[in-house]
Amino acid sequence: MIAQANGFNLTTYLEKNRAKVDVALAEYLDGQEKRTRLLRAMSYSVMAGGKRLRPILCIASAEAVGGEINTVLPIACALEMIHTYSLIHDDLPAMDDDALRRGAATCHVQFDEATAILAGDALLTLAFEILANCAGRSPGVRNKTLLRIIGRIAAAAGYRGMIEGQMRDMAVEGVAILQKDLERLHRRKTGRMIEVSVESGAMAAGGTDEQKKALFTYAENIGLAFQVVDDILNVKGDPKLLGKAVGTDQLRKKNTYPSIMGLGNAERMAGHLVNNALMALDDFGNKAEPLRAIGRYVRERKR
Amino acid sequence: MIAQANGFNLTTYLEKNRAKVDVALAEYLDGQEKRTRLLRAMSYSVMAGGKRLRPILCIASAEAVGGEINTVLPIACALEMIHTYSLIHDDLPAMDDDALRRGAATCHVQFDEATAILAGDALLTLAFEILANCAGRSPGVRNKTLLRIIGRIAAAAGYRGMIEGQMRDMAVEGVAILQKDLERLHRRKTGRMIEVSVESGAMAAGGTDEQKKALFTYAENIGLAFQVVDDILNVKGDPKLLGKAVGTDQLRKKNTYPSIMGLGNAERMAGHLVNNALMALDDFGNKAEPLRAIGRYVRERKR
Repeated sequence: MIAQANGFNLTTYLEKNRAKVDVALAEYLDGQEKRTRLLRAMSYSVMAGGKRLRPILCIASAEAVGGEINTVLPIACALEMIHTYSLIHDDLPAMDDDALRRGAATCHVQFDEATAILAGDALLTLAFEILANCAGRSPGVRNKTLLRIIGRIAAAAGYRGMIEGQMRDMAVEGVAILQKDLERLHRRKTGRMIEVSVESGAMAAGGTDEQKKALFTYAENIGLAFQVVDDILNVKGDPKLLGKAVGTDQLRKKNTYPSIMGLGNAERMAGHLVNNALMALDDFGNKAEPLRAIGRYVRERKR
Repeated sequence: MIAQANGFNLTTYLEKNRAKVDVALAEYLDGQEKRTRLLRAMSYSVMAGGKRLRPILCIASAEAVGGEINTVLPIACALEMIHTYSLIHDDLPAMDDDALRRGAATCHVQFDEATAILAGDALLTLAFEILANCAGRSPGVRNKTLLRIIGRIAAAAGYRGMIEGQMRDMAVEGVAILQKDLERLHRRKTGRMIEVSVESGAMAAGGTDEQKKALFTYAENIGLAFQVVDDILNVKGDPKLLGKAVGTDQLRKKNTYPSIMGLGNAERMAGHLVNNALMALDDFGNKAEPLRAIGRYVRERKR
């Protein structure tokens, strides 16, 4: 339970929205007439749980500018599918070669490698199909805005964004790098998708340029903070709460914020980033309370 | 040299359009400031040559309804990128495990497996970025139409289309199947992308519903004919003209039209399909001459 000021309860908010996202995702994947092996693999990985951070950021951002969840729910689902595809491909033997994710077998272990590659491909493709099919829906997004959202999401996920981040992450394995290079790597690997989650929510809900700019600053800082805290939890987190082993980064000689700048400095950095994120929301009223609570949660989370 | 009636020369037409497509593709991939390893892998596979059948069908279809190449060139490039990504992933060790394509090393051999997976992912993602960025271009496509094109291309490439075709192709390896199942497999694996190439060209150029319907029939028949002829060439083609070995399908016990229905029947089937395709163009004037010539070429090609 995470109690919050202003009568806002983040736990309730997260649970409620995660449930809505899960129902929508299941409709896309499990509501099909024919449950092919491909669809089962896609659904297996998408429905394996997870925080649904990107969809919830998209929804909370839309709400912060006066929009509502139903307008952005398809966009939120598309973002989660792109995130899941990236996890499936990153887990492959040719990449990070992970057999477990959140305590369950990864897609290529549960099915097979070819199916995992294709399930990832299919989730990425379906994300864009869903985005395109938002057109003309009610409550809807203007066609011009929708096309801009598709372009932004593709750019964030593509060869200058998330995919390049994964390339660099593999390239620097076991090589000591500078803090600014680590930040650049994370900005691409995870940051850009977090940024575009917030951005697309605000765009779809008709936020002003000023609002979008502020929300972008929020997302930039939250995205980096999330990664810094991830690294900190790998040093001093509770394996029981985390659901995974700690100390693994050090064993693998991974570049992390604690390894580069020390644990204390990394903790100060996380606090500083979250403060920046919260400050960016100064001109937003109560409607941004979910975003603020998510910001505080990023710093305080134990898992 | 393939001489044609009506003063139309297909060889010239194909060369001219292939050159335009190649220039546009190179601009997307090689015109970047930073030539990362990822971009080099993407470019390596895209620029490795090929017939550019899908882009040229898209262009010829746009022309058949009175449109022009500049309107559809980005769409044509996106189609080729999706085609190339599918080849890169199909060639992977976990799938068809091919070391050579068109006489050159496949992407995972030239680079490495992780890079090949990510280069495929990045081409698929870039295709949608390019499609979304068509918005507001001149000479342009209406936003509503563009969104419909994105949705149609994603559907054709996705879990009900091309990707499911690859799943089935792997599933039936070494298992004798019926002709109707082989047709269904090819319809998904290659047919749907050929259909949507023609369809998107006609949509972008503002074709009428009647025209689009006729062009769809053309594409359906051409797509299947192309596959039947591929199988025939693997039996009786000239390895020198083809640039690859023949008889390999029989060695691999692959399901092919000649293996299921006999060579003579397969040849009659190819002729029949191309006739159907040409008949669908009866109400089109001279502007459909490129599509007709491509249809005849599909039947008569030696490579």
